[in-house]
Amino acid sequence: MSGLILHEDARSGNCYKIRLTAAHVGIKLERRNYDIMHGETRTPEFLSNINANGRIPVLQDGNRFLTESNAICFFLANGSKLIPDGHFDQADMLRWMFWEQYNHEPNIATLRFWLRFIGIEALNDAQRMQITGKRENGLHALDLMDNHLKDRKWFVADQFSVADICLFAYTHVADEADFDLEAYPEIIRWMERIMTMDGHVGLED
Amino acid sequence: MSGLILHEDARSGNCYKIRLTAAHVGIKLERRNYDIMHGETRTPEFLSNINANGRIPVLQDGNRFLTESNAICFFLANGSKLIPDGHFDQADMLRWMFWEQYNHEPNIATLRFWLRFIGIEALNDAQRMQITGKRENGLHALDLMDNHLKDRKWFVADQFSVADICLFAYTHVADEADFDLEAYPEIIRWMERIMTMDGHVGLED
Repeated sequence: MSGLILHEDARSGNCYKIRLTAAHVGIKLERRNYDIMHGETRTPEFLSNINANGRIPVLQDGNRFLTESNAICFFLANGSKLIPDGHFDQADMLRWMFWEQYNHEPNIATLRFWLRFIGIEALNDAQRMQITGKRENGLHALDLMDNHLKDRKWFVADQFSVADICLFAYTHVADEADFDLEAYPEIIRWMERIMTMDGHVGLED
Repeated sequence: MSGLILHEDARSGNCYKIRLTAAHVGIKLERRNYDIMHGETRTPEFLSNINANGRIPVLQDGNRFLTESNAICFFLANGSKLIPDGHFDQADMLRWMFWEQYNHEPNIATLRFWLRFIGIEALNDAQRMQITGKRENGLHALDLMDNHLKDRKWFVADQFSVADICLFAYTHVADEADFDLEAYPEIIRWMERIMTMDGHVGLED
């Protein structure tokens, strides 16, 4: 697999998880950066040539374009050791990836974006009203992860998989959304296992 | 594949999409119903035996339990004609399934649940504040679907796939969340194609 272009904002965890997957399977990505805080994914060029939805990440493979970060990770990892054997374990991996996008990202990543990038004083009323709920849901997501890791090293099938990568992306920066990761010893140990693996790259690498 | 048990609330679109997938691949599911409006997925028995997270749907395969509706659909369909060939098309199918859970379900399904099942007068302030945003996002999701279907019959790879099933589940009851589907002629035609297929089952079948 070659000639792939990642259209991204490098600070986004959803973009980082794609780079981390690519690093582990040895795929080189050409990276094109857009500053979402300055509307660079809403320009007429971006909307007509890259993604009419105005969002990153987008993976370009020739004249085909793929969106949704976890689908892109699956694409890069398909057929590699990052996807477990067996239909049940494959579905269980996807289960954690769907769970990440439904229960984790809308809470932890959104709070990180609101608090660190937009700034609390610039939020509108509807956003402010959601902070408490997103905080509670984010804590619940971290509790569930920590509990799941109590008797296993990896999320699925006793092996490092795309599910671990997708969950790691926003978990390891949850402190930027004012979550105290020190309260989750199993998550800390799991993150250390990931960060010391051969082939690991950091969000800012 | 046999002996599978679906723990569900039959009115949920997330449960219905699993039954529709099973019908198309010829898998028989034993169905066990729980009334989520009466806390039947929060009983000690359910929490300790079925899902500690207190949610349906859950697919039980012997002593293993799988959650997340779209992961369950993928599990049932894996290796069948409901999943396209080719890594890009498989990822593109997952792209629509992730998109459904992030952009469609939290808006259209949540409004249906709030308006039809809970009732607007019983919503709390934080929920009321989100109605306008969820309405806008739901309309945007339907626009995007209608536009995507303008030059194709199915969402991915010119074939009926799990992506169509997952998107159909809550789209075909969007009127119960006060969305006017008549405004989306391509969606209407796509739904008619699905509802007249061999093997189709309805939400209330």
